[in-house]
Amino acid sequence: MSGAGKFIQNAIIEDSFWSRMRETVRREGIPYQWKALNDQIPGAEPSYCMRNFRIAAGKESGQHAGFVFQDSDVAKWIEGAAYSLRWHPDEELEAVIDGAIEEVVAAQQPDGYLDTYYIIGGLDKRWTNLKDNHELYCAGHMIEAAVAYYQATGKRVLLDAMIRFVDYIDSVLGAEAGKLHGYPGHPVIEMALMRLYAITQDPKHLKLAKYFVDQRGQRPLYFQQEDERNHNAFYWKDSYFQYQYYQAGMPIREQTEAQGHSVRAMYLYSGVADVARETGDAELAGVCRRLWDNTVRRRMYVTGSIGSSEYGEAFTFDYDLPNDTIYGETCAAIGLVFFARRMLSLEAKGEYADVMERALYNGVISGMQLDGKKFFYVNPLEVLPEACLKDYGKRRVKVERQKWFGCACCPPNIIRLIASLEDYIYSANGRDLFVHLYAGGRFEADVDGKPVQIATRTNYPWEGDVNITVGVDAPAAFALKLRVPGWCEGYALKLNGEALNVPVVDGYALIDRLWQDGDRIELALDMPVTLARANPRIYEDVGKVAVSRGPLVYCLEEADNSRSLHNLRLGDAAASDFRTIWKPDKLGGIVELKSPGLRETDDGWGEIPYSGVKPIETQPVTLTWIPYYSWANRAPGEMRVWVRR
Amino acid sequence: MSGAGKFIQNAIIEDSFWSRMRETVRREGIPYQWKALNDQIPGAEPSYCMRNFRIAAGKESGQHAGFVFQDSDVAKWIEGAAYSLRWHPDEELEAVIDGAIEEVVAAQQPDGYLDTYYIIGGLDKRWTNLKDNHELYCAGHMIEAAVAYYQATGKRVLLDAMIRFVDYIDSVLGAEAGKLHGYPGHPVIEMALMRLYAITQDPKHLKLAKYFVDQRGQRPLYFQQEDERNHNAFYWKDSYFQYQYYQAGMPIREQTEAQGHSVRAMYLYSGVADVARETGDAELAGVCRRLWDNTVRRRMYVTGSIGSSEYGEAFTFDYDLPNDTIYGETCAAIGLVFFARRMLSLEAKGEYADVMERALYNGVISGMQLDGKKFFYVNPLEVLPEACLKDYGKRRVKVERQKWFGCACCPPNIIRLIASLEDYIYSANGRDLFVHLYAGGRFEADVDGKPVQIATRTNYPWEGDVNITVGVDAPAAFALKLRVPGWCEGYALKLNGEALNVPVVDGYALIDRLWQDGDRIELALDMPVTLARANPRIYEDVGKVAVSRGPLVYCLEEADNSRSLHNLRLGDAAASDFRTIWKPDKLGGIVELKSPGLRETDDGWGEIPYSGVKPIETQPVTLTWIPYYSWANRAPGEMRVWVRR
Repeated sequence: MSGAGKFIQNAIIEDSFWSRMRETVRREGIPYQWKALNDQIPGAEPSYCMRNFRIAAGKESGQHAGFVFQDSDVAKWIEGAAYSLRWHPDEELEAVIDGAIEEVVAAQQPDGYLDTYYIIGGLDKRWTNLKDNHELYCAGHMIEAAVAYYQATGKRVLLDAMIRFVDYIDSVLGAEAGKLHGYPGHPVIEMALMRLYAITQDPKHLKLAKYFVDQRGQRPLYFQQEDERNHNAFYWKDSYFQYQYYQAGMPIREQTEAQGHSVRAMYLYSGVADVARETGDAELAGVCRRLWDNTVRRRMYVTGSIGSSEYGEAFTFDYDLPNDTIYGETCAAIGLVFFARRMLSLEAKGEYADVMERALYNGVISGMQLDGKKFFYVNPLEVLPEACLKDYGKRRVKVERQKWFGCACCPPNIIRLIASLEDYIYSANGRDLFVHLYAGGRFEADVDGKPVQIATRTNYPWEGDVNITVGVDAPAAFALKLRVPGWCEGYALKLNGEALNVPVVDGYALIDRLWQDGDRIELALDMPVTLARANPRIYEDVGKVAVSRGPLVYCLEEADNSRSLHNLRLGDAAASDFRTIWKPDKLGGIVELKSPGLRETDDGWGEIPYSGVKPIETQPVTLTWIPYYSWANRAPGEMRVWVRR
Repeated sequence: MSGAGKFIQNAIIEDSFWSRMRETVRREGIPYQWKALNDQIPGAEPSYCMRNFRIAAGKESGQHAGFVFQDSDVAKWIEGAAYSLRWHPDEELEAVIDGAIEEVVAAQQPDGYLDTYYIIGGLDKRWTNLKDNHELYCAGHMIEAAVAYYQATGKRVLLDAMIRFVDYIDSVLGAEAGKLHGYPGHPVIEMALMRLYAITQDPKHLKLAKYFVDQRGQRPLYFQQEDERNHNAFYWKDSYFQYQYYQAGMPIREQTEAQGHSVRAMYLYSGVADVARETGDAELAGVCRRLWDNTVRRRMYVTGSIGSSEYGEAFTFDYDLPNDTIYGETCAAIGLVFFARRMLSLEAKGEYADVMERALYNGVISGMQLDGKKFFYVNPLEVLPEACLKDYGKRRVKVERQKWFGCACCPPNIIRLIASLEDYIYSANGRDLFVHLYAGGRFEADVDGKPVQIATRTNYPWEGDVNITVGVDAPAAFALKLRVPGWCEGYALKLNGEALNVPVVDGYALIDRLWQDGDRIELALDMPVTLARANPRIYEDVGKVAVSRGPLVYCLEEADNSRSLHNLRLGDAAASDFRTIWKPDKLGGIVELKSPGLRETDDGWGEIPYSGVKPIETQPVTLTWIPYYSWANRAPGEMRVWVRR
């Protein structure tokens, strides 16, 4: 397999788009969420998260509160805060994280076990419900936090604690006789163990990850045995999901469709891809490709969101992508970004980066208010406010982002992704240096054993021009591979001001040469407005188009276009009829689009509900389009992505 | 108020459309449902209904089973079976009904009380939860059964028992001090009491009906007090419904929108209209008109179905009429027919009969399989079988009718309506004789004190020709008012073979003359195919048309048009491009429609989900349309009413 290799960490991002958002995350999101974890946000649902750790450590008395997976919220927060230290050292924040880690580690048991739900509720009950009680999920997130904090600071307190916990997990679970043959109901520990293994190189860590991947769904089914043994409820027994809700209805090597809970699916597939790459298991890589294809070709929204149904927060069936009853959880789109990056590491194909970019610029960042203080769980493509209140099937679709959630998986998840965004942009494999995403900034990496500095200037995603300067100590031969996005129909390349013609291989423009210090690459990606149709099998989108420009999907919002967005049509408007306007003061700075359109009126209809003779009259209007991610930052109102012709 | 007066009962229906369906009801439905009530249908959910009466009478031991309103199923069955005796005397069936009544009456308590749920479960608890426990609902249905059976046979056993029960109810509930100021959570007793009053002329019966209508929703709210007093659960406390689920959030005279449970709403409004007419209360009649207008102009499907949401089996908000997550309960469409007939009695306006006809020929009879043995609860306008299985929001939408339901309100309801259909066709008020619906048959009525015989021949709804012969003992002056349906754009009238021009008043062609015995009226209603659009405010139907012909709405079914109905379009096809074909052997005999159309193909799309460059190609196809009511009588598959242009 010829993958894009390892992703380069510790790049510096400096550009207008991401720097602002990352600063928002650093200045607002991280401190805000620390308050939330400590129940200090007035009017928000309490988290109880840190309190649980203090109770578990015997510092306070009380009962465990919140979900069984409440521990994972601080884990994700530590991870996100740790990333921010990489690009913005902050002693004060580091001290807060050290304090949090002290609280976490204080609850660890002598045998290494660490899960406040069972420490408080009774250790005798641990490992009795791997299916639903999230012990391994919490462990996985805390391992990721430990790795991130260790990599950011070199501090090992949490890392060592987690290694001890993994030792204990390994003594309890595994293929060997005498161990429980279980695996997590909610995956994440698979990819966490692979990150740990990357540091420790301890074969036990790889072996345990591989065990979790391969044991899942084997007969006899562990979850079924566990349910019988411990009289656990099986919530999905009358559902078509059955154990595929957990992606555990069959061994992973037999799975062909993205099924069940969409976040669990993405986390599992990400871990499977990690194991496939590390072990060179071609069959397992094929399984990942198959599940990837099903996910992004038949079950993904144009915004990169996934999960069509609130029921089970899950995938449904091929081409079932309702825009108004969507689940489209922020965490699921984030999971798709994780999965995409791992597929890139397996195979250097632009398609993976295309999806990663689509999810990132749309269904992921739509999850966060521009001020970093409110969050969406559900990311709809069509919203009618009254329906969210009065149509029970849309009750989880919100018109405004929420301050915090009792089940607060999404807010810290988006923060840890944005804070570590630099890890998704560049990768190196042998003498190939890949640029997968375009963001301004700089980094230094070893390419084929030689240090290479790359500096990028761009106003992406608002403009398609990307200027890259290469720095080398001495002339160095290597291949720079610049992604030509799938949405891009035309581009131009220059080297030191001269036009350059190079082949595009698997979606990457390949510039293989002996690089001189100061070489300048100018990539100009055409970024016209695109009017996309959906595959005719996607029945909810027939007769409609989605407007995008570059990686950004656009939408109509009531604040710009008044009410009854369903009566707006594009009519004969072509992509070339759209005007782009840079609006520095609107929604944090956006390129707004204006297009001709039509509004269908009910003039003359009065109170007649149905008529064979009344005409539908249209009047010409100007439609105003904003980037999808920026919706719901003004007065609550209607929004829609797919618009009729 | 100039209403259409009292509806004429005991007409004989003899025509190709209704006679077949009524014979199916008589031969299959009535015996089948009697078996169901006695738990004798293999594979169907047991009813326990008759068993509950035997236990309540002390003939068997055991617990009450089924819903709290299980008694109403036998009440509706007795009522339906009683109607059938009017047009098909049947000693054997009458003996079965007598037996059923014997079982019912045997359970009646010395004080007159009759409700098996409380008789078995503890009489001390009766009247503690009028809100949810359906005592007055069961009483109401049993009163209707008693009246119907008395009118069909002259037998008074059940009638007298119900009069005793009403006396008892009247001693417990009412405005007077010392009585409970309650009213039913599920209306029906209001219209039942009015039917009882029509026989007894006992002012107590009118007064009690009027009390239930006016007390509802008065402050302090009885249901709230009752909940507090008896620690009842309030299921809708976190819902936007609140007490409007029960249409009890405010007094009826203040209500302006059709809200809450749609069957309860229709039953209540029907009772209100009865009281308004009997008492001449103009304000109350205005309330009915307002609620009618909101129902049929903003909250009714093109099939006459109502109730947009499974949540609460309820109305949602204006113009919210989703075709695939619809509730559209059969009972609610039946309730709309009840309401429509009562509005006609208040005001002789064709609009009421138009809606009555729309519901009857579409959303009502779609509820029953052509063989009379299976039933729909939910009547969708768009079905994708896989979605019913995998989209939780569509789980109540079924692709096949069911044998019976644990909550079996719809099957006996449709049977009692079809068995009494003759009561909805003709009415007389003074010297006006109205024909509201067109069905073959004959009747005799007193018009202005003179006996008039009317005989009708028609092949309605397949053809628009209606031939009426008037029989009089001596020349008689009266006005024959023939409805010109709202869907009809042109018609011709002849009297004894000569063209006749008469005014159309409020939707009725008025033929006022001195009638001679044997006078022949020929009414020829143009019945072309109509392509209806929805009011642009109905957002689910924008860009689509619904095909109808005469009173029948048509649909596309997979059995005729293969899969992926969402890819079918009408394109430029005009109504005049449709061909009508009488198919005697298809679906019990239907006029099938054929039209040109287009199928959008995914040729060339492969696995691409979204594209700005791939064209949507169309190929010409012939579309086959069947009457909506006849869908789901072949292999299960897709169906859709609203089709894109």
